[in-house]
Amino acid sequence: MLGPGDDAAVVSAPDGRVVVTTDLLIEGRHFRRDWSSGYDIGRKAAAQNLSDVVAMGADPTGIVVGLGLPADAATGWLDELTDGFRDECDLVGASVVGGDITRCDLVVIGVTALGDLGGRAPVTRSGARPGDAVAVAGRLGYAAAGLALFREGLNGPPELIEAHRRPHPPYARGPEAAALGATAMLDVSDGLLQDLGHVAEASGVGLVLDPEAFTIPYAMRDAARLLAVDPLEWVLSGGDDHALAATFPEDVRLPPGWTVVGIVTEGTGVQVRGVSVDHGGWDHFRE
Amino acid sequence: MLGPGDDAAVVSAPDGRVVVTTDLLIEGRHFRRDWSSGYDIGRKAAAQNLSDVVAMGADPTGIVVGLGLPADAATGWLDELTDGFRDECDLVGASVVGGDITRCDLVVIGVTALGDLGGRAPVTRSGARPGDAVAVAGRLGYAAAGLALFREGLNGPPELIEAHRRPHPPYARGPEAAALGATAMLDVSDGLLQDLGHVAEASGVGLVLDPEAFTIPYAMRDAARLLAVDPLEWVLSGGDDHALAATFPEDVRLPPGWTVVGIVTEGTGVQVRGVSVDHGGWDHFRE
Repeated sequence: MLGPGDDAAVVSAPDGRVVVTTDLLIEGRHFRRDWSSGYDIGRKAAAQNLSDVVAMGADPTGIVVGLGLPADAATGWLDELTDGFRDECDLVGASVVGGDITRCDLVVIGVTALGDLGGRAPVTRSGARPGDAVAVAGRLGYAAAGLALFREGLNGPPELIEAHRRPHPPYARGPEAAALGATAMLDVSDGLLQDLGHVAEASGVGLVLDPEAFTIPYAMRDAARLLAVDPLEWVLSGGDDHALAATFPEDVRLPPGWTVVGIVTEGTGVQVRGVSVDHGGWDHFRE
Repeated sequence: MLGPGDDAAVVSAPDGRVVVTTDLLIEGRHFRRDWSSGYDIGRKAAAQNLSDVVAMGADPTGIVVGLGLPADAATGWLDELTDGFRDECDLVGASVVGGDITRCDLVVIGVTALGDLGGRAPVTRSGARPGDAVAVAGRLGYAAAGLALFREGLNGPPELIEAHRRPHPPYARGPEAAALGATAMLDVSDGLLQDLGHVAEASGVGLVLDPEAFTIPYAMRDAARLLAVDPLEWVLSGGDDHALAATFPEDVRLPPGWTVVGIVTEGTGVQVRGVSVDHGGWDHFRE
C-alpha cells in the first residue's frame, strides 16, 4: 500500500454499510497512451468507478488504485495520472486513500471506489415496476461521437473530442435519485439500450423509449451530418459517457437535470418505437 | 461488476469506518501459471490482501477482484482461481462480493480487501515506543525456503514447497493484537528485517532482535543443511509468508501464537546482535 504508508487505509463509513466497486483498465484495450494524456486516463479511470458508486445512490468517499507500469513510463506520466485521479475525486469530495504500484509490460490500472449510502437504500437494477417513468441524466452519445470524429482524423468539435477522452458523469444525480425514490438505476457504460436491457431483465419488466424525447445537441447533429450517420445511434448505443438511467414512480416530480425518455411496462426487453431491441445497437433495428 | 450483478456491491461496515487495501499481481512477476495452480494463485492473491487487513487490527469482510485474462486461459483455470479466492475468504468469514473481468495479454489480478475495526483503533506502523516488546505470529522463512528448494528442482519437504505456493497468514492474531493494545503492527511481506525497518522509521525508534528467539523448524534446518545456507537468513529476510509483527507495551501478557523476538529502544533502525541493518538481508551483515 502507498498513500497512507501503512498496510491499509481507513475510510469513514458513517452509514454502517459501504458500497464498493472495481474496474480493471488495460492499455490498448481501454485506453491508449498516444490518444489520451496520463491526466485524462486518470480522470477517466476514476470517473467510471465513481459513477458506479453514485449509480447505487451512494456518495463516493475514496478510491484505491493498483498500478502496473512499464519501465518506459516516464515519471511525469505517473504524476499526470495521479493528478487525474485526484482531480476527479475532488469533484465528489472523495480522496485517493491508497494504492499499489508494480512493474508490468503494459499499463494496467485497477481502481476500486468506495461510497457511503447516507442511510438510503441502495438502488439496484431490479426494482423497476410497470408504470414507472424511465429517465436519464448526463450526457449520451458524446463519447461515441467524439471517437467517430477522432477516428476520421477530425479534431472538433472540442466538446465531443474531449468527451471521448474522459466522461463527465452527473455525479450529484445519483444520490438525488435515491433520495427521490428511484426504483432502479445504473450508469450507462455500454450504451443506453444495452444497459437498460439489464434493468428490464433484472426487474422482469419491459421498457419503452420515445426517441423524440432525446435532445440531440447542435454539435452532435452537425458531426452526424458530416459523417453521414444517425446521431440517435450515438445517443442510444454509445457507451463511455457514464450518464445515469433510472426508473421512478410516476408521481415523482423530477428536478432539473433529469429527462423522462420512456416508461416501464409489463413484458420484457427494451423497445423503441415499438421495435424490440435485444442487446443490439440502434442501427440493428432502424427502419 | 460481476457477483452481485449491479454497478457495485454493498458490504456491512458496522464500525462506521472501513479498512481498505489493494494489491496488483502480475503474471511472471508475482506468480507463474506453470509453477502454481489457479487455485493456489487465487488463495495467495486473496491471502496477501486479507493479511493487510488483519495487520490493521480489523476483521476482513469482503474482497472485490479485477481480473485480466488472456484468451488462452481455460475456463477451468478461472474456476480454480475463483475457488481459491472463495476458500481463502472463508477462513476469515469474508466473501467475494464483486469483480470485473477483461481481456489482457497476460494474467493480471487486482484484489481489494475490506475490513471492519469492530470499534478498535487501527494499528499503524508508527506507534512503537521504547520499552515495547517486539513479537511475531505466524510463519517466517517457509516461503523463502520452499522457493529455494523448488529452484533446485527438489519437491520436498512438502510443508516448505507448499508454503511457497500459498501463505498461511495467522489471521486471528491481527484483531487479537489490536485488542491487546499493540502499539504498531504490520504483515511481513518483504522479509522481517526490511518490514520492521518501516516500523522503526515510522515510529522514530530502534528495534533490537534476538536471533536466539526464533524457532527454526526441523524441516527448515534440514533444507538449509542440504542447500548449505543459514536458515536464519530465510527467517529474517524471507518474504511472502505474511506473518504478523507487532510491538506491545511491556506489561501485556501475550497469548499462545505470539513469540517475543526483541525489544523497542531509543534510536533508529533494526539491529540483530548489535549490528545495524539498513533494509538489507541477514546475509549482508552476518559475521
